[in-house]
Amino acid sequence: MKRYEDLSPSLRCIMTPGPVEVDPRVLRAMSFPVLGQFDPEFTDIMNETMEMLRELFKTDNKWAFPVDGTSRSGIEAVMVSLIAPGDRVLIPVFGRFGHLLHEIAERCGAEVYTIEKEWGSVFAPEEVISALRSFKPDVVAIVHGETSTGRMQPLAEIGRACREQDALLIVDAVATIGGVPVETDEWMLDAVIGGTQKCLSIPSGMAPVTYNERAEAKLLKRKQVERGLRTGDFEAGELPPVRSNYFDLSMLQDYWSPQRLNHHTEMTSMLYALREGLRLVLEEGLTARHERHALHGQALVTGLTAMGLTLYGDPDCKLTVVACVLIPDGIDGESVRTMLLEHFGIEIASSFGPLKGKIWRIGTMGFSCRKNNVLRVLGALEATLLRHGCDLSPGLGVQAALDVYEPKGR
Amino acid sequence: MKRYEDLSPSLRCIMTPGPVEVDPRVLRAMSFPVLGQFDPEFTDIMNETMEMLRELFKTDNKWAFPVDGTSRSGIEAVMVSLIAPGDRVLIPVFGRFGHLLHEIAERCGAEVYTIEKEWGSVFAPEEVISALRSFKPDVVAIVHGETSTGRMQPLAEIGRACREQDALLIVDAVATIGGVPVETDEWMLDAVIGGTQKCLSIPSGMAPVTYNERAEAKLLKRKQVERGLRTGDFEAGELPPVRSNYFDLSMLQDYWSPQRLNHHTEMTSMLYALREGLRLVLEEGLTARHERHALHGQALVTGLTAMGLTLYGDPDCKLTVVACVLIPDGIDGESVRTMLLEHFGIEIASSFGPLKGKIWRIGTMGFSCRKNNVLRVLGALEATLLRHGCDLSPGLGVQAALDVYEPKGR
Repeated sequence: MKRYEDLSPSLRCIMTPGPVEVDPRVLRAMSFPVLGQFDPEFTDIMNETMEMLRELFKTDNKWAFPVDGTSRSGIEAVMVSLIAPGDRVLIPVFGRFGHLLHEIAERCGAEVYTIEKEWGSVFAPEEVISALRSFKPDVVAIVHGETSTGRMQPLAEIGRACREQDALLIVDAVATIGGVPVETDEWMLDAVIGGTQKCLSIPSGMAPVTYNERAEAKLLKRKQVERGLRTGDFEAGELPPVRSNYFDLSMLQDYWSPQRLNHHTEMTSMLYALREGLRLVLEEGLTARHERHALHGQALVTGLTAMGLTLYGDPDCKLTVVACVLIPDGIDGESVRTMLLEHFGIEIASSFGPLKGKIWRIGTMGFSCRKNNVLRVLGALEATLLRHGCDLSPGLGVQAALDVYEPKGR
Repeated sequence: MKRYEDLSPSLRCIMTPGPVEVDPRVLRAMSFPVLGQFDPEFTDIMNETMEMLRELFKTDNKWAFPVDGTSRSGIEAVMVSLIAPGDRVLIPVFGRFGHLLHEIAERCGAEVYTIEKEWGSVFAPEEVISALRSFKPDVVAIVHGETSTGRMQPLAEIGRACREQDALLIVDAVATIGGVPVETDEWMLDAVIGGTQKCLSIPSGMAPVTYNERAEAKLLKRKQVERGLRTGDFEAGELPPVRSNYFDLSMLQDYWSPQRLNHHTEMTSMLYALREGLRLVLEEGLTARHERHALHGQALVTGLTAMGLTLYGDPDCKLTVVACVLIPDGIDGESVRTMLLEHFGIEIASSFGPLKGKIWRIGTMGFSCRKNNVLRVLGALEATLLRHGCDLSPGLGVQAALDVYEPKGR
């Protein structure tokens, strides 16, 4: 029989738009012994996590809990639960993850109407509002931070308009939660999905979601109690049942309620990680955390431009936590990425679809978002580009970033 | 702002049918720093895990990988991918988890036909075969080890009959994999779902699945490339696309293939846990592991009966890894469970539906399945029952279990 070696992953400096490095305290939390899923100590941890998530999402919503899967599991859970077959769904698309929302809505059986914006920019609120008025959707689904293009869509005016039109607004905040402000209640977002492996710096594996009473009202019209758990007569809802059992939020909320109605077996160790990661986020404070992300994001782009590289996309809607850089003419982007990984232990990302081979994406997210990482990636990228015959003046990138951290004359 | 305390879960002796205790080496694996999802070191770990899963499932199938979610996510992924709306699906039900298969199939849009067996027993193969011949299903879905009743359904004859009738056979082996033999190829199972948090003793969070070429052929008829990743013309499949993006196995297999087509962000730390847990299983050896489960299961039931308790269900089809015990007349089952947890740190389980309040379920699974745990639960259960005024002769349970471990006159 083959003998498998001990696991021994290399230490990496991960400067992608996720997954990113994880704080050692979060890693440690996953190594605690497990509790049973209905052990009162464990349900206390579940309740505490809900409380922390409400703070994170800036909401008074009753419901804020993780879906047990990667970020897109949270997106699918919210969409399949809130979109009934035949519903009219408006999706403004300005990058790859808008297409994902389109695809999921379609699989939910929705009548989908999309508006598209050229990659690298975002919508003016009135463009979305005008589509909202003419298409009259039941649901609007939109990405907040689009990592494929590094842009961020302002949401406050869209939120108000959706409320006025009585459309449910679903927001994919996977890339922004914990890194830039996400104001669930203030912006009138009906359902929001966050990601763990980006600005929260928790390993991929859970998808925190929150939704308000407007969303819950729709859920309750589709509610079913699971076969095998039903007692007495069973009454069907007003709308067709959710097409998924695993992602049925009306069941998940019963499991996360004091009722604790059995559904899946909660992921113990991932919940430990989420709870510890959220504790660190709240200890740092959301405002301080957003400022930290802004500072390092600024140092990175200052360094990149000083080095002579050109940023991609409309700077007015740049997502703080991702810098998109045009790959210089004649340079093989993948060869640069490979050299960075193999020689410097640094990972940066490529992109998708029309941007494949055109840009690199460098993230400054969560635990990865720190001064020594920013300086390290700038120095290594410069060395790698020089090695690839790129014409640039050495030394400028790191110096410019240092200037951001330590303004001269101070 | 509220200050959250350090995570500090108590050490428990978990003798339920899952989730169970986790080997410290698996817990440690989760505390390793993360790698990026397309880091060659990480994709090597993915490939190695697939190799280990083929050994675990006793199969030469090309496809064997985890779905990123709890066990039921694996069940739903296999069902929603292999059951097209309108498909005829036969589900033999002999406990709660058969009802779950029914529910999921229904949500997939199947025409479901169930046959039911009284809880506590299983089907004779000819009962299933006869339903197979009369209903002529496209798909049969069945539970191997039903933890709600503690029974195990023999599958070899059913597998052969499904192959003859050209029905796809989906098997929920969540409770059995790693604890009792599961012979994917020999029994002609077309798709099998295993669980991590039971006999594999890995925290809940991933669902290993395997499926053969017959299953893949059906998948490929439903294949879609994700919007936002498509290049060139897109051709729709012969059957309607899978209703879920997250659970579309035709996409998941592209992600797990050398093509590495982007889908979700693989759960790094959970994959470390799965890989390490599988390494320990294969190091012990499947046969030795099954024998260990049989031995401790035997010691437990011997102790329980010696104590004067009565086992529930047909002994001929008892699932080795779960003992179901009738709660003695006049005893409050939940009060006993609470006392076991609070005074002894031991968790045992109740059951569902018609068995709620009627039986306790005591598991001997994975890392929890060891001599000191069996002796500990017997001693503590005796003490707790005495404390509840139960009429039993003290001392007999533990002694009888010791006799199993150390036969007299040896």
